[in-house]
Amino acid sequence: MTRVLCAGLGLIGIEVVRTALDHPAVDLVAAVDVSPALAGRSLTEVVGKDALGLVVAPSLEAALEETRPDVVLLSTSSRLEAIAPQVLAALDVGAAVVTTCEELSCPWDRPEADAIAEAARRAGRGVLGTGVNPGFVMDLIPALLGLPCTRVDSILVERTVDLRRRRDALRAKAGVGMTVEEFEALAAVNGIGHVGLDCSARLVAFAFGSRDAGWPAVSIEPLVNGDMVCGFRQRVGYPGGDGAPSIELRLEMSMSPVGEADRFVIEGEPSINAVFEGGVFGDSATAALVVNAIPLVLAAPGNLHTVLDIPALRAWKPVVH
Amino acid sequence: MTRVLCAGLGLIGIEVVRTALDHPAVDLVAAVDVSPALAGRSLTEVVGKDALGLVVAPSLEAALEETRPDVVLLSTSSRLEAIAPQVLAALDVGAAVVTTCEELSCPWDRPEADAIAEAARRAGRGVLGTGVNPGFVMDLIPALLGLPCTRVDSILVERTVDLRRRRDALRAKAGVGMTVEEFEALAAVNGIGHVGLDCSARLVAFAFGSRDAGWPAVSIEPLVNGDMVCGFRQRVGYPGGDGAPSIELRLEMSMSPVGEADRFVIEGEPSINAVFEGGVFGDSATAALVVNAIPLVLAAPGNLHTVLDIPALRAWKPVVH
Repeated sequence: MTRVLCAGLGLIGIEVVRTALDHPAVDLVAAVDVSPALAGRSLTEVVGKDALGLVVAPSLEAALEETRPDVVLLSTSSRLEAIAPQVLAALDVGAAVVTTCEELSCPWDRPEADAIAEAARRAGRGVLGTGVNPGFVMDLIPALLGLPCTRVDSILVERTVDLRRRRDALRAKAGVGMTVEEFEALAAVNGIGHVGLDCSARLVAFAFGSRDAGWPAVSIEPLVNGDMVCGFRQRVGYPGGDGAPSIELRLEMSMSPVGEADRFVIEGEPSINAVFEGGVFGDSATAALVVNAIPLVLAAPGNLHTVLDIPALRAWKPVVH
Repeated sequence: MTRVLCAGLGLIGIEVVRTALDHPAVDLVAAVDVSPALAGRSLTEVVGKDALGLVVAPSLEAALEETRPDVVLLSTSSRLEAIAPQVLAALDVGAAVVTTCEELSCPWDRPEADAIAEAARRAGRGVLGTGVNPGFVMDLIPALLGLPCTRVDSILVERTVDLRRRRDALRAKAGVGMTVEEFEALAAVNGIGHVGLDCSARLVAFAFGSRDAGWPAVSIEPLVNGDMVCGFRQRVGYPGGDGAPSIELRLEMSMSPVGEADRFVIEGEPSINAVFEGGVFGDSATAALVVNAIPLVLAAPGNLHTVLDIPALRAWKPVVH
């Protein structure tokens, strides 16, 4: 059994706990959330599933000291700045870390990442940022789809998400119900839309040979129904050239999308056209990717990894190494 | 530059050489084929592409001794028994090995594999069997597609290949033009159809938790047009149960297929429906997968690996580690 601590009990964190509880090889030893509304409550009540009498702990550091887990599953923030101290605290007690923090999925050129990588090497423990996106649909999959090509000219990924099938919190993050002015004001301060599309693009660039591609600019536009925002369209990419393929990632989240799907077009030799019909449903997928990564991260060298660096290819029921 | 020796100049081997010659990080130092029809000939003439004045060498051992390559790309046989001495010879001079040998893609429970793994550990060099199938479409891809699932009930993969688009040799291997009696006689001695479907099934079983699934039986039936065979349909799988998902792989190669495509259906939470429209074209894909594996195998520990064990996720233009 692998001793697991889950930190962060937002919507994704709750899914992670539920998935961890279901896993036959996971021994959930603690769940942490600093929110006064959650700390001290019965975990069973918070996640809606029998959680073995655990109570939500208020302090990550105290819970780490007390339980000394093998792995910490961290679903506390999209921002690296916010989670960096938590990752370091986990490494300090010798725990590996898997996190849904979007910014950690592509850690290059971020000062906090260097400190994490160094601490991970010192602790001899792996750290990985993953999830459905970044971490799977718009980076790992196109990277893998390019593997059978002798030549790649361009990579296009289009993910279309039907917000009617998703949770309220995601609709709010997508700007649903705002005025265009409200949306544009948030967009101007990078405060709306999906976090991590630039991470995905950079991972794809790396997979196709450019480690030093730099951070690409993400553009976002609202989708409007009458006076109200009903979703958004985001784009990011690299123009290619000089032997590098062009890369374009398009993400649309909308209350009235034309067909929910993930589409991949790789032009090259051979060209590849792939479709995930209905798309990969994000909420459970992120939780599965995090829990399925546990044995892989435990088997990986002590370092900060990306989904491109570890053999992320064994699903559910992890195999003992 | 990585110093590469290519052995085996059949149709796949020639594609591998052509792809290696095109690769900016590859220095092709030798090409070997024991066939008297090829040995001694200009490589440029054999592969139809400028091959830097190389002459096809007749002896693998002599060429290994002389050139001491970093990596050997081995496209000599589908059978592990045939390639095992070649792999050991390569390891003996300190070369890593990537091979299209279907049987090496899933090496468990094969006596030759144990000797190779031991020699690889001793040499500190990686060995990998890969290709479009086994190695990618019917094993690596379904393994990856299961990664975002919290629960997997069943996995179905259907690959349909249009033999009209493929080379004569593949059509002959598929029995095109035989009588049903000729086909059945060969099928009875396991002498027709695609080699390695059982390997793919076992890799999938491993990816979903069963290392000890054992070798599944492959069934094959001819597809008939009038009196003549025009292709075949092969099936392999595991019934599942006891917490393991059911697995079914179906391969159809035909002169009149209904839609060339690779289809993947994973039933679970969430379910995943994926299609590669037009399929992954095998000939160039296998060569690309072999050449793209070079930096990954060089970075891997000294051992016999499968495509599930190494981070096979960087394409073309390998990144220096």
